[in-house]
Amino acid sequence: MNEKPLILVTNDDGITAPGIRSLIRIMNKIGDVVVVAPDSPQSGMGHAITVDNVLHCNPITVDDGPQIEYSCSGTPADCVKMAINEILNRKPDLCVSGINHGSNSSINVIYSGTMSAAVEAGIEGIPAIGFSLLDFKWHADFKASEDFVKKITLSALENGISEGTVLNVNIPKLSKKEIKGIKVCRQANGYWKEDFDKRTSPFGKEYYWLSGEFVNKDGGEDTDVWALENGFISVVPVQFDLTAHHMIQKLNSWGL
Amino acid sequence: MNEKPLILVTNDDGITAPGIRSLIRIMNKIGDVVVVAPDSPQSGMGHAITVDNVLHCNPITVDDGPQIEYSCSGTPADCVKMAINEILNRKPDLCVSGINHGSNSSINVIYSGTMSAAVEAGIEGIPAIGFSLLDFKWHADFKASEDFVKKITLSALENGISEGTVLNVNIPKLSKKEIKGIKVCRQANGYWKEDFDKRTSPFGKEYYWLSGEFVNKDGGEDTDVWALENGFISVVPVQFDLTAHHMIQKLNSWGL
Repeated sequence: MNEKPLILVTNDDGITAPGIRSLIRIMNKIGDVVVVAPDSPQSGMGHAITVDNVLHCNPITVDDGPQIEYSCSGTPADCVKMAINEILNRKPDLCVSGINHGSNSSINVIYSGTMSAAVEAGIEGIPAIGFSLLDFKWHADFKASEDFVKKITLSALENGISEGTVLNVNIPKLSKKEIKGIKVCRQANGYWKEDFDKRTSPFGKEYYWLSGEFVNKDGGEDTDVWALENGFISVVPVQFDLTAHHMIQKLNSWGL
Repeated sequence: MNEKPLILVTNDDGITAPGIRSLIRIMNKIGDVVVVAPDSPQSGMGHAITVDNVLHCNPITVDDGPQIEYSCSGTPADCVKMAINEILNRKPDLCVSGINHGSNSSINVIYSGTMSAAVEAGIEGIPAIGFSLLDFKWHADFKASEDFVKKITLSALENGISEGTVLNVNIPKLSKKEIKGIKVCRQANGYWKEDFDKRTSPFGKEYYWLSGEFVNKDGGEDTDVWALENGFISVVPVQFDLTAHHMIQKLNSWGL
């Protein structure tokens, strides 16, 4: 590439999160960086968009890097739409989202604001990658991730990501030396077994906290969960054609 | 089936919306109905869940039908989690979501709260169907839809829906006589071309409304968009394994 690539950076933990600051530093070494990210945490937002409220979006300076930054009141998917249609004057060469504080492996991809931003970019025809570190702490250590994030990004820019696909990258909470490498995987078949925590407010009203534990139903050694549990970084190609093509023939036999 | 099936009903337009009231009336003829639905409209929520706030969920009587109803402060996906894990004392035989006021065909499935509820049920191993009418008006006429919704629901209960799959049903805005039938389809390849409407508040602050138009990039006659434009009800089997399996080999050639 003769010209520097234009890279759009976003996330779901909010523009000041250490994870996105780390991702911006890495991307500044690769291309021209524009950041359009939520002004507050948006975890668990899935592919939400703001249809019944207004959006605010303003330039902001968070640190002294060369990137240009905007803070936006919407969801991660809103941020990508805003960036592409209102802020950038040309289509970015790549959109990266993250680095998320916490896992987006297996079924978490469905609930993930980080991945919804990547998917939104993919829908708009932009190569996109979501990055997540398996450490939900605000002050998680993103240092060990940096070389791997850079390697995967450069590889995506060089090889291209097929239309209709984005990448979901998860990084285990290990030191750089402990990480065994990068594995291309499929999404493990798992779910969250909920356990609602029922409490009473100071005013006598009952309320709930959603909590639970992840259940992996998948014994395969080609899944993201297996890779992460065995010290590898997982890369899952994710699509947004949700059609279960194998079911079409069966449904036709219903005689509707 | 000897016993009446237990049917969980939810939506994203809120528990008082005419679309869910219509769906409840239809389901009351088929089984024992429990409604757990949002207390306010949740359109465009995608697969959002509430992770950083509390949830309220209370019994409510909206009309004089035999159904049992709960109004919940969360998203459609929250409602399904709450129903399955906190309210119902056995797994429902079916979860139906809708009838949505507006289309969830093509890429709209990604942004849809209606479909996120169905997908959440699917993840928890419950057969599920999302129904949408191509009329976003609050007082849309759901009358023409009723026999078709009943037919598809009975067929799903009889034939079963394969694990890992839920159904996305869209109904054209036509009279019962004008509807040509039901077609099993794939999701059309399309996207929203955004057009942000920039305005100034009474206090001089700039803000935006997200708007745009749907672009169908797909010329196929086997898609949901084609079926709906040609007077058919579309049924798309939707999966939540998002892995782009066909991309795995290509990604392995990157040598990561």
